[in-house]
Amino acid sequence: MQFIDGGITAAKGYKAAGEHLGIRKNPGKRDVALIVSETVASAACCYTQNLVKGAPLTVTKRHLANGAAQAIVCNSGNANTCNDNGVEIAEGMCALVEKHTGIKANDVVVASTGVIGQPMTLQPFIDGMDALCAALEPSGGHHATQAIMTTDTVPKEAAVQFEMGGKLCTLGGMAKGSGMIHPNMATMLCFLTTDAAVAPEALQETLSDTVKDTFNMLSVDGDTSTNDMVAVLANGMAGNAVTDDIAPFQAALRAVCEKLCRMMAKDGEGATKLITCTVTGAKDEASAKAAAKSVICSSLVKSAFFGADANWGRMLCAIGYSGAEVDVEKIDVRFRSKAGLLAVCKAGRSIPFDEAVASDILREDEIDVLVQCQDGKAEATAWGCDLTYDYVRINGDYRT
Amino acid sequence: MQFIDGGITAAKGYKAAGEHLGIRKNPGKRDVALIVSETVASAACCYTQNLVKGAPLTVTKRHLANGAAQAIVCNSGNANTCNDNGVEIAEGMCALVEKHTGIKANDVVVASTGVIGQPMTLQPFIDGMDALCAALEPSGGHHATQAIMTTDTVPKEAAVQFEMGGKLCTLGGMAKGSGMIHPNMATMLCFLTTDAAVAPEALQETLSDTVKDTFNMLSVDGDTSTNDMVAVLANGMAGNAVTDDIAPFQAALRAVCEKLCRMMAKDGEGATKLITCTVTGAKDEASAKAAAKSVICSSLVKSAFFGADANWGRMLCAIGYSGAEVDVEKIDVRFRSKAGLLAVCKAGRSIPFDEAVASDILREDEIDVLVQCQDGKAEATAWGCDLTYDYVRINGDYRT
Repeated sequence: MQFIDGGITAAKGYKAAGEHLGIRKNPGKRDVALIVSETVASAACCYTQNLVKGAPLTVTKRHLANGAAQAIVCNSGNANTCNDNGVEIAEGMCALVEKHTGIKANDVVVASTGVIGQPMTLQPFIDGMDALCAALEPSGGHHATQAIMTTDTVPKEAAVQFEMGGKLCTLGGMAKGSGMIHPNMATMLCFLTTDAAVAPEALQETLSDTVKDTFNMLSVDGDTSTNDMVAVLANGMAGNAVTDDIAPFQAALRAVCEKLCRMMAKDGEGATKLITCTVTGAKDEASAKAAAKSVICSSLVKSAFFGADANWGRMLCAIGYSGAEVDVEKIDVRFRSKAGLLAVCKAGRSIPFDEAVASDILREDEIDVLVQCQDGKAEATAWGCDLTYDYVRINGDYRT
Repeated sequence: MQFIDGGITAAKGYKAAGEHLGIRKNPGKRDVALIVSETVASAACCYTQNLVKGAPLTVTKRHLANGAAQAIVCNSGNANTCNDNGVEIAEGMCALVEKHTGIKANDVVVASTGVIGQPMTLQPFIDGMDALCAALEPSGGHHATQAIMTTDTVPKEAAVQFEMGGKLCTLGGMAKGSGMIHPNMATMLCFLTTDAAVAPEALQETLSDTVKDTFNMLSVDGDTSTNDMVAVLANGMAGNAVTDDIAPFQAALRAVCEKLCRMMAKDGEGATKLITCTVTGAKDEASAKAAAKSVICSSLVKSAFFGADANWGRMLCAIGYSGAEVDVEKIDVRFRSKAGLLAVCKAGRSIPFDEAVASDILREDEIDVLVQCQDGKAEATAWGCDLTYDYVRINGDYRT
């Protein structure tokens, strides 16, 4: 398996486009993405566990009941959530895709991201769907990625190639997510396409497993969105035989999802640093996950990273209230970045360390927190970012 | 029952002092508080549920095993947590109180607040305990309150008078807490004294019950401290007979704790606003509490309040992921402050409202979020604050 350039259209048989249809005011901002497969593909999806769910999720669930899909349509600028006519709008978007491409509305995945509870009309889609479909290109993945961005500052794309069933297969994906990011079973909009042939059940199982270790271990601000969705299409155009041994695909999916997670954490709203917390030697996986996620979720830990302050006591505090079964008297903590590796806590106790060295390590823009529990063999990794003035600025006036 | 001036020394038979002993560098900052009762009192305490616990909590638990105490000693500037000699230091503080007051070390409640994992010595207490004891005064409550402050910007004191068993009783308290505030069973340092006679078991039960509805419903930043502690002494000097009907005392305790909670939330690190979320009409109390607490904990909600942005969708989102059993299609949301009352969401849907009116309401420094679930009779209230640039500034360089 190796990473290649590209994203959502890296695999065979996919086209995409991203255009400005007028959901957002700025005419220079692409606001609707369309991705289509040449043929009907196996499809799987994970959704937010928030009780408040965006209308597009209701519609997508219905459309994916048969495990098949051929297109994805997604707008930014309005979450289409808590609106009276939400389902009608989402179905309308799919019907317009059918009208202009011939792909059945029932084979369309629909998603929205933006402000919750803002009235929305179908008019921009009615007016612009023709132009959006005309713009579909095998090289259109980048425009589609741009079209789903909200407060994201960089587009998030990744792709890998791998061999399966004797054929070279490709998997690519795109994601958006910067605020309201604390996925639970899925995250704010990630779309993946592969030309590998994978049966729908295996596709769903692989996606669900992967999501638990990747998107569900990501947090920007602790807020689980109402519109989180990860969808994958597998159109089989690589020509591989459908097989039970899909380990290469599983590894590829994990690699792409993990890379997109890191990109989302690093581009968290206002963030200046990617924080990766890896817990090893834990009693069980649940404890490892709880401890790792608690560290990257703590507002105090996040603020300390912003200030490059080696305040490891806050990390121990976060592990202590995480619900993880740990023996705090055994925990070691180290910081690592390009600038070096430094032990700051041994067996739950302070140890002397050079503040200047700590400061150099913590001034880098990618920092690892290594927590060793000396209590077993389970491990987990979680991704987050620092808490900065800009997070507050961005979210103090997002809507108005 | 009525509120009166004063705090920890408002009740009969209590003296207090707060002096600078040198734990903190600034010679103008009082850093050790001492509170003593004329007689041995019934005592009860609640502690943090964080697995990482400050050494003073271990020592206090041991000292309160018999339900009796006569003094409270507490320093700020160092949490005495994750230190090798933590228990030794905490026991040493109590022994010094015994040496200079004659109160048995075993009858001393000891607490610490400040940086975690910072080496600490007994020397400042050895040098300064004599002066601290000499400063004990019936009017010393205010100095004691100042001595336990860390990032707090205002001292937090409250007192009430009530009748019980035919006698006029008084209950007073002091608290500190501004960051790392998300109590679970108890909060970061609250001390209460009463001259009412209350049996130790009833005292503990009343305190535990009260804590669930007050301090456990308070959050500044979602971080449950390692040193949270609420302790109450009841010395019986009001002369009331010990009785089973302690309803007046229960009401008094709740009133004082609630007032201190509001003061802590309003003085949250960097906060400019007190946010009170009251959920009514919920299916059960657990759901009401989960929903209310989730709203005041959300970083996105908190940032929106800082910006006076009526972004109610984020509140519905927070309720949706809270774990509360609610029917989102029935939820109404209103904002209230001195400037007025405004409905923004009906039955889970957006309703038109005047943005200028919303902005006026949200610019006040005390805002109520009223959530009606139309689903039952349970209710709960939670207290929090906005998330501001100053929270990040304060916590980006707290330690260094």
